[in-house]
Amino acid sequence: MALKLYHAEPLANSLKSMAPLFEKGLLFDSIYVNLHKFEQHEPWFVAINPEGQVPVLDHDGTIVTHTTVINEYLEDAFPDAPPLRPNTPAGNARMRYWNKFVDEHVMNHVSMHGWHRLVGVIARKLESGAFDQLMARIPLPDQRRKWMAARSGFSDEQLADAMAKIEYAVDKVERQLALTPWLAGDVFTLADINFYSHCGMTVERMFPEMEIARRAPRLVEWRDHVTARPAMQQALAMPDHTEPGLRTWSGHAR
Amino acid sequence: MALKLYHAEPLANSLKSMAPLFEKGLLFDSIYVNLHKFEQHEPWFVAINPEGQVPVLDHDGTIVTHTTVINEYLEDAFPDAPPLRPNTPAGNARMRYWNKFVDEHVMNHVSMHGWHRLVGVIARKLESGAFDQLMARIPLPDQRRKWMAARSGFSDEQLADAMAKIEYAVDKVERQLALTPWLAGDVFTLADINFYSHCGMTVERMFPEMEIARRAPRLVEWRDHVTARPAMQQALAMPDHTEPGLRTWSGHAR
Repeated sequence: MALKLYHAEPLANSLKSMAPLFEKGLLFDSIYVNLHKFEQHEPWFVAINPEGQVPVLDHDGTIVTHTTVINEYLEDAFPDAPPLRPNTPAGNARMRYWNKFVDEHVMNHVSMHGWHRLVGVIARKLESGAFDQLMARIPLPDQRRKWMAARSGFSDEQLADAMAKIEYAVDKVERQLALTPWLAGDVFTLADINFYSHCGMTVERMFPEMEIARRAPRLVEWRDHVTARPAMQQALAMPDHTEPGLRTWSGHAR
Repeated sequence: MALKLYHAEPLANSLKSMAPLFEKGLLFDSIYVNLHKFEQHEPWFVAINPEGQVPVLDHDGTIVTHTTVINEYLEDAFPDAPPLRPNTPAGNARMRYWNKFVDEHVMNHVSMHGWHRLVGVIARKLESGAFDQLMARIPLPDQRRKWMAARSGFSDEQLADAMAKIEYAVDKVERQLALTPWLAGDVFTLADINFYSHCGMTVERMFPEMEIARRAPRLVEWRDHVTARPAMQQALAMPDHTEPGLRTWSGHAR
């Protein structure tokens, strides 16, 4: 049984699927895909994932894409490894409720601010001929639109709307952590990894104006517990080739 | 073991969680929530689901919301009933890939056109005082925004963008059905129920200009197979209190 993970820097999507591999103690070949060189749109990569996105799991030739799907796949395929799913019907439902919330109402909004700061700079550095070539190679229409928006700059209205949704998510998580130590209840699950990777680990550093330590002290404590996990430390230590000047949202967990 | 489902008309979200109950042969108490009377925002209902949305599953007091989560819950909680999940790691991953695609890239776009035709009419009929009262009772900010947008009318640009995404989804499903009889492979799963409920059953009738029969003949054949399933017939026969004049997207499966 050979596992390969195609991934980029240890944050957001790529962190979200590396963390479970380390948590479960599964050995995997790490294949770094350099997003700064647009390797995810190269023909060799699109042959593996026609959507041209990382991460991708290859398990003995079975290709799995989309982090929430990859992470449940690891639970299904390796039932003897330490579980990250409650494995009770109600516990799984709570975990999936949070995964869905992060996937649909958190990730894209933090991502917009990240793209605005990081990808926008990269996209604007490209000459327009090179940019058009890049666009022509992106398989997903939505992804093409996101690149074009990042290049021209997201509007203040878009950024403020995303910000309001991040605040909503932070407050919702804070309320949950008043009730249970982890998002889905008494045990650490994929839902914690999901919110951490897409928002929890970076929100204080990305948005100092939110005064996270005051607004969401439980979230901060929870974040520090997640960061301290040995498996998360291993995942966070994976290669990061982001240019230092562009590290507005990658890097350390705070 | 007592199951209750709070639901509205047999289409979209409500159909999506009624169909698995019938497919699995699970007896349930049906509690009709009249969206035309905004019962989903009444205090008694918000006490059950603080998000003020249908459907809601109550299984011996365990409350489960969000259709994709409800449907996997039924798989986990009733492992002896006929499965709607492949129950192999790779099969589950394919099912979840499609569920995610429908949840994130199909449902909202069809829903916008449905709201434009149906909810927009309802919202505009309300006097502004009554409308403000309605708004004040809606728990989710996103849902409030959707009502306000439906009342003022979605823009041509928004509707065209949603249309382009529905066309993308139809073409993607058509390509998949050239490879496998069902969306996730050789067996009928929750993914088929999902796409059917949110798009497949209504797309030809809602968007005649798409010429679905010509553009996506496999989808039409697949739709007819899903419609003909005895469990789907039972689900589609559940109460529909939509005023006939507003039935632009509910009712029969074509």
